[in-house]
Amino acid sequence: MPSVDVNADLGESYGTWRLGDDDALLQVVTSANIACGFHAGDPATLVRTCRSAARAGVAIGAQVGYHDLAGFGRRFIDVDPDDLYADVVYQIGALDGIARTCGSRVRYVKPHGALYNTVVTHEEQAQAVVRAVHDLDPTLPLLGLPGSALLARAERAGLRTVREAFADRAYTAEGTLVPRSQERAVLDDPRAVAERVLRLVTGGTVRSVDGTDVAVDAESVCVHGDSPGAVRMARAVRDTLTENGVDVESFL
Amino acid sequence: MPSVDVNADLGESYGTWRLGDDDALLQVVTSANIACGFHAGDPATLVRTCRSAARAGVAIGAQVGYHDLAGFGRRFIDVDPDDLYADVVYQIGALDGIARTCGSRVRYVKPHGALYNTVVTHEEQAQAVVRAVHDLDPTLPLLGLPGSALLARAERAGLRTVREAFADRAYTAEGTLVPRSQERAVLDDPRAVAERVLRLVTGGTVRSVDGTDVAVDAESVCVHGDSPGAVRMARAVRDTLTENGVDVESFL
Amino acid sequence: MPSVDVNADLGESYGTWRLGDDDALLQVVTSANIACGFHAGDPATLVRTCRSAARAGVAIGAQVGYHDLAGFGRRFIDVDPDDLYADVVYQIGALDGIARTCGSRVRYVKPHGALYNTVVTHEEQAQAVVRAVHDLDPTLPLLGLPGSALLARAERAGLRTVREAFADRAYTAEGTLVPRSQERAVLDDPRAVAERVLRLVTGGTVRSVDGTDVAVDAESVCVHGDSPGAVRMARAVRDTLTENGVDVESFL
Amino acid sequence: MPSVDVNADLGESYGTWRLGDDDALLQVVTSANIACGFHAGDPATLVRTCRSAARAGVAIGAQVGYHDLAGFGRRFIDVDPDDLYADVVYQIGALDGIARTCGSRVRYVKPHGALYNTVVTHEEQAQAVVRAVHDLDPTLPLLGLPGSALLARAERAGLRTVREAFADRAYTAEGTLVPRSQERAVLDDPRAVAERVLRLVTGGTVRSVDGTDVAVDAESVCVHGDSPGAVRMARAVRDTLTENGVDVESFL
Repeated sequence: MPSVDVNADLGESYGTWRLGDDDALLQVVTSANIACGFHAGDPATLVRTCRSAARAGVAIGAQVGYHDLAGFGRRFIDVDPDDLYADVVYQIGALDGIARTCGSRVRYVKPHGALYNTVVTHEEQAQAVVRAVHDLDPTLPLLGLPGSALLARAERAGLRTVREAFADRAYTAEGTLVPRSQERAVLDDPRAVAERVLRLVTGGTVRSVDGTDVAVDAESVCVHGDSPGAVRMARAVRDTLTENGVDVESFL
Repeated sequence: MPSVDVNADLGESYGTWRLGDDDALLQVVTSANIACGFHAGDPATLVRTCRSAARAGVAIGAQVGYHDLAGFGRRFIDVDPDDLYADVVYQIGALDGIARTCGSRVRYVKPHGALYNTVVTHEEQAQAVVRAVHDLDPTLPLLGLPGSALLARAERAGLRTVREAFADRAYTAEGTLVPRSQERAVLDDPRAVAERVLRLVTGGTVRSVDGTDVAVDAESVCVHGDSPGAVRMARAVRDTLTENGVDVESFL
Repeated sequence: MPSVDVNADLGESYGTWRLGDDDALLQVVTSANIACGFHAGDPATLVRTCRSAARAGVAIGAQVGYHDLAGFGRRFIDVDPDDLYADVVYQIGALDGIARTCGSRVRYVKPHGALYNTVVTHEEQAQAVVRAVHDLDPTLPLLGLPGSALLARAERAGLRTVREAFADRAYTAEGTLVPRSQERAVLDDPRAVAERVLRLVTGGTVRSVDGTDVAVDAESVCVHGDSPGAVRMARAVRDTLTENGVDVESFL
Repeated sequence: MPSVDVNADLGESYGTWRLGDDDALLQVVTSANIACGFHAGDPATLVRTCRSAARAGVAIGAQVGYHDLAGFGRRFIDVDPDDLYADVVYQIGALDGIARTCGSRVRYVKPHGALYNTVVTHEEQAQAVVRAVHDLDPTLPLLGLPGSALLARAERAGLRTVREAFADRAYTAEGTLVPRSQERAVLDDPRAVAERVLRLVTGGTVRSVDGTDVAVDAESVCVHGDSPGAVRMARAVRDTLTENGVDVESFL
């Protein structure tokens, strides 16, 4: 029986400012990428989110990002690798402390926003993230983009890697993501997206923007939850998978 | 053979701004109260300090404070207890993550600055700190002022408490600290301070500002290191203790 | 013909996090208390809000607060008066810079959140705010609570003061606000609130929680806009005033 | 009689952390590039520095930077131009508010650190800085590197530009700075540096690393003050200029 993990970003509120519907998402996902305070997520928010995730039986992942609240971690920062190493360890440790008070632990790591995009190609920053995870706990898997510098270096360092696909993103004929700057980069029909994910999981292919089928190999599918429509799409993806006999479960 | 722990604040630099002589202090103390990023200590500083502490065999403590870089944690903030709870867990977890990459762990917790003073009498904030330590790791000792709400509540919660005395502070006839606002609150002669600490450790008393001897029961003595003179005084304290047969060692 | 100013808090978003419906409020109020970046309001938000306020012909006020994003300025901080003085000047100057790029200026100052409540009785912090406004521009009015230390000291310093009433808050028989911790502290029926404000403006009295009428003398009425219901109430207040011949206009 | 302006960075302390000797530098320079709180300079520091500058008769410039305390503004951040525009206006306005309380004003603008280097070639960020200065006050000069995108765009926008040279930096035969990553990039002999600056001011040329003389046209010379040695060098530069009949005065 085929199986797949479904992940989403959570814990992205900050103080009085709320973002996303964490409670709804925790009914959908099997892995929660929880912010760690650098791009979002004040400590009280993280306590609430980790408690809910632990109660829902959802795996807690540390979503590490650049130290940039005003930019929500979406702006590249040319951080020195040694500083980035320290920033990543600090964030994982902080969230792990909170998870421990909830009877859980941080179970994996995923970079956020501009850091996620940067470590696809930026070898020094990718290596800094890998070193941080390796030195803190070499049993922690790293979740990232197939073919990225991050996953390549993680494998070389002996870390477990988890390849992810994006439920609502268009793919090129080469199997890479269509850049957001282009039209048709993001899909918005819940039913079409759900069917697409089902085919990806059971058949290992995605229909590209050129109309050809490309192989996409993913152990986890990323869904969004920052709007009511996004939550509905996430639920459609999960329901379609379940109804078609796919086991939606954590990659752990 | 009598023994005592000597503790000091470390890791209080922030980015390009340097404070204190951590390397010199690590030759003197047996317990390092290391900042956790909220009042001081950017992650790269914490990595450097934890590495040095681990190499020197000095116990790493989490010095948790208010989230206030501009005020260096020295201004009371009326934080809601649930928020303070989360802030304290976050800080300990973050430093513990960094300590783990150095082959060590956070071994105890000590509040910093205004938080230290506040939890002497503020029951709600004291309880928030106690709950945070208890829920994260009930084997972590709390270092604090004898007679404080913090230590009373920590004991009730089943946490180990460590009472500390201050090497360079004057005491009243009641055994409390002379407020800094008063003259003669702070002693500055290294030899006199060292003799005073020796008597405290071997005799259990301190000469008060009234000239009477008061009982002060402490397992750890706090020294400062934020100026060259402070480091000299700290060294004098340690040397005098050692030369007089006192075992200077961690309370752990 | 009677007249009154209507003020509300704006510019309280921060980066990706949105709060309040500034565009809707700018159709209602005559004075916009715009955050200055310390408790809310990143610079890009402030540019957008000042542009909209200038376009709508609404007076721009600097809503100064404690430096505390995670607490949204709602937690008392025991800031040294000289530091608070500098913080207030900095915030007013920053917003004034942005207002100038929009063809406008900061026209008045109002403290936010915990600072607002603190300067009702805290003489040193009240004086720090007064000194800051006085030294920056002695023609800037200060908006605050009647009977507060802030307004008393502002008057002594020769500043213009503007007394405000709260549209949706219950008053005691002594004319002070019923604390939020008590039941019935906040009113939520738009029609009742609107009638109440009309009576306050035209008759100078408010029905207290004891059922007696108390004199409340206010040149400005504060409304809220942080929820769709709040915006509806604000609009009801303005419409009722206008329909009953009250001139809703800035106090400037 | 030839004349030149001498500028340096000031106001770079933050809370308890001190950096640079502002009082010594104010005896040397005619223009003070004062930090604005984003990369350094808490408001209380800025008040102290602006007061000292006003008292010393030194022109106050706003040294605007990226919002990055931990990195001291020395790390490139890929800020959206509209956000950078708002950040720059905010910083200049904040410092101008403080300068006004000292009986002065912000008289010019100079980017700091990574922003300074970025706007040499990054057209969008250069244009954002130019727009910010232009919209806030088109009479404010911009201080920068000759040949930079910043100065080119500033001129096109009708802003006054001030070209600066660096007292202690080596130049290539093409008149550009030798990158810091190379040996011999920075000169450290006060006397040699002072002679070099004198020749630059009176002759318009600098001896390049290749041994050829290159034309460098500068109205202002930048000196450093972040170490006792740097202050001595700054003083040597000024004394040598004065002794040789050069008028050291602001470019205003």
